[in-house]
Amino acid sequence: MSDYRRILLVVDLTEDSMLIGRCARALAAAVGAEVELLHVVEFVPVEPMGETLMPSVQIEDELLDRARQRLAVLGNELGVPPAACRVESGNVKAEIVRIARERHADLIVLGSRERHGLSILVNFTEDTVLHAAPCDVLAVRVGRP
Amino acid sequence: MSDYRRILLVVDLTEDSMLIGRCARALAAAVGAEVELLHVVEFVPVEPMGETLMPSVQIEDELLDRARQRLAVLGNELGVPPAACRVESGNVKAEIVRIARERHADLIVLGSRERHGLSILVNFTEDTVLHAAPCDVLAVRVGRP
Repeated sequence: MSDYRRILLVVDLTEDSMLIGRCARALAAAVGAEVELLHVVEFVPVEPMGETLMPSVQIEDELLDRARQRLAVLGNELGVPPAACRVESGNVKAEIVRIARERHADLIVLGSRERHGLSILVNFTEDTVLHAAPCDVLAVRVGRP
Repeated sequence: MSDYRRILLVVDLTEDSMLIGRCARALAAAVGAEVELLHVVEFVPVEPMGETLMPSVQIEDELLDRARQRLAVLGNELGVPPAACRVESGNVKAEIVRIARERHADLIVLGSRERHGLSILVNFTEDTVLHAAPCDVLAVRVGRP
């Protein structure tokens, strides 16, 4: 439980991802773990509105391609080999837990934002992951003032 | 953010505390951080019911004393010096955040239990701490089957 061997670094590909990535990398270096990168593309189902300019399958493929390219850039900057960079599509929380199990991750690293007011009532990704995860979870504080 | 210097280890003094403590200690050793121990005694306000056998102030003092003794034993087993072992009373979540700020902790380590069903709707300590914390939070999975 204390000797982390495989860290699953979950990024949303925002500007905070590099910050969280550096944190995970430093931790991995300190404890001698390897890092795998995960980004999940969650498709919001769109109701058909008569004519569409592009079939939805094609839009999804383009979103996935773009995510893969951006994750590859991030992986390169963080020194994570391409084979350890993964883009999945589906429910974000479910995919994180699924991949963590599948890859036998012993630590999930993700970002956490400060909450105020009503938003505290909503179940955010990090909360759900926290309780469904098969392993430890490190929430890296991002978006500090 | 990645180079942790001061880890605030929060324990509820259940049997899981040693497990979480070992995890925090191993991490601290790996990254070269120091560990401070915190236990918070939350007093449930009791309505006066006529005669009481003991004044409530005395009960509180005894609870605090007992907690201090148990925390000292745990601190000793984990190699945390007595000066770095702290028992506070009040709201658990508020005290964790307050002490984290006061002690300039850059990582809070606490336990997290798996949730099922309705309990996922309740705001647990680790959720609240996750979003109110001034620093990163490591949730160590306990109570695995």
